[in-house]
Amino acid sequence: MRLTIIGLGLIGGSLAKSLRRLGFATTLVGVDASSEHCEEAVQLGLVDEVKSLEEACCESDLVILAIPVDAASQTVLNVLDLVGSNTVVADMGSTKDGICKVVEKHEKRAQFVATHPIAGTEHTGPSAAIDGLFDDKVAIICNRERSSEGALARVENMYKVLQMKVVSMDSAEHDEHIAYVSHLSHISSFALGNTVLEIEKDEKSIFNMAGSGFASTVRLAKSAPSMWAPIFEQNQENISVALGTYIENLIHFKKLIDEKDLEGLASLMSDANEVRRVLEGIELNNND
Amino acid sequence: MRLTIIGLGLIGGSLAKSLRRLGFATTLVGVDASSEHCEEAVQLGLVDEVKSLEEACCESDLVILAIPVDAASQTVLNVLDLVGSNTVVADMGSTKDGICKVVEKHEKRAQFVATHPIAGTEHTGPSAAIDGLFDDKVAIICNRERSSEGALARVENMYKVLQMKVVSMDSAEHDEHIAYVSHLSHISSFALGNTVLEIEKDEKSIFNMAGSGFASTVRLAKSAPSMWAPIFEQNQENISVALGTYIENLIHFKKLIDEKDLEGLASLMSDANEVRRVLEGIELNNND
Repeated sequence: MRLTIIGLGLIGGSLAKSLRRLGFATTLVGVDASSEHCEEAVQLGLVDEVKSLEEACCESDLVILAIPVDAASQTVLNVLDLVGSNTVVADMGSTKDGICKVVEKHEKRAQFVATHPIAGTEHTGPSAAIDGLFDDKVAIICNRERSSEGALARVENMYKVLQMKVVSMDSAEHDEHIAYVSHLSHISSFALGNTVLEIEKDEKSIFNMAGSGFASTVRLAKSAPSMWAPIFEQNQENISVALGTYIENLIHFKKLIDEKDLEGLASLMSDANEVRRVLEGIELNNND
Repeated sequence: MRLTIIGLGLIGGSLAKSLRRLGFATTLVGVDASSEHCEEAVQLGLVDEVKSLEEACCESDLVILAIPVDAASQTVLNVLDLVGSNTVVADMGSTKDGICKVVEKHEKRAQFVATHPIAGTEHTGPSAAIDGLFDDKVAIICNRERSSEGALARVENMYKVLQMKVVSMDSAEHDEHIAYVSHLSHISSFALGNTVLEIEKDEKSIFNMAGSGFASTVRLAKSAPSMWAPIFEQNQENISVALGTYIENLIHFKKLIDEKDLEGLASLMSDANEVRRVLEGIELNNND
């Protein structure tokens, strides 16, 4: 299998590391707009060589797009134009409806598979790549009826080799749900970071007092703006609804605190405790 | 050292486990309003025996209050009344100004030390106790000028034995800062849990898609309402300001998303990325 990975950051780099270990690819070619990333990826041994987009696409059995969602939407048509009739193309972005609409009318649409592996960290770049990042996680495939059987088989096989559980759904449904269970978490974390950093300007000693709870809720605030701004743009409608509901819940929480309504607060928190059941499910899924 | 721990939950239980291992206490007596907790604590070997409040207080060198902050404020005067002139009393609650006001006029005020060890998990009860919970964390002592040298020495020695870094500050300052770096994190997490559980009522499959980012931001939503409602009540004024600022930041974030203002969003996120520096400090402090 000749594999090309476009985008040698956390996701592309981790994919390269794992697939090399698992013997999935015989040759591993990298493409990245940043020459610095290219050099780093070769030095780290993530890929065998780096090539231009044109050269890499012509020679590959499978081309993976692991770049920010705006860049993926811009690049995917070019990639489909370049590849031969036996090459499969897949993306790994966190929004799926936009890219599915972009490729909808392309004559090679059936060679494309829209996917979203639910895995990542708050770190970026080739040096952030982790062997095993995808182990036992969920990979979502969207609008599978628009991909050929052969293309699906090649991509599903890759995810199975990575020990991932494949789930299929509609791209619009994906974007609605992911707004709640991923995009909203990132916004809550970014805004928490901003709030606490603002007060720190006046109160230098504040972070002496921060513990593991703060670290846990604010961890995602380290995530890359260049990755997240395009996600917020592409999934604006769904995120707006989810974020609106979150803000309403916080306003309600604040009202109960201001009224010192302990019963009301306890009831809200008991409801939230139900998330225990969900988290056990995630831990089970993620096997960690 | 004859040590009494009032409250055999996560904090009291973890304290017992660690201090026993470290040889700090020769006898370890537990007090808890729940007979179930008492039985469990003895079975788990957390304490040597459980006694009534009256009996335990009379015979101890050091009495630690590790109960919810409303119960601590109610119990502390009773404890001070009961103890002899050589006994030291300390609390471990997450709010400090309230309890300091409660004990202010007590004739044994100098025997009391107001403390807050910055350590915990989202779990509760004796079975949640962890040996090493306090290792290398920060312990805050408030209004130290109101405690006697002897009382301070006994409590600081305990925290040093636990390998904690002791920081001193005013109780009002403590409550203002902790609203930002702890209480706000819990509210953001509770409200996130509520928001996502609400949408789940209609969309059963949503949690297939939740990953480690969601798990991280929502972890604190598992925390005990009986512990947190009293904290929100006691620190209402500070939390109201912090939560109000957080809500304003989220509303601003939503406005930029709705306007698809990618530059504005990237700028906000870059500011939030600065939290990286803070988190490195926490990891350094916590040594994990």
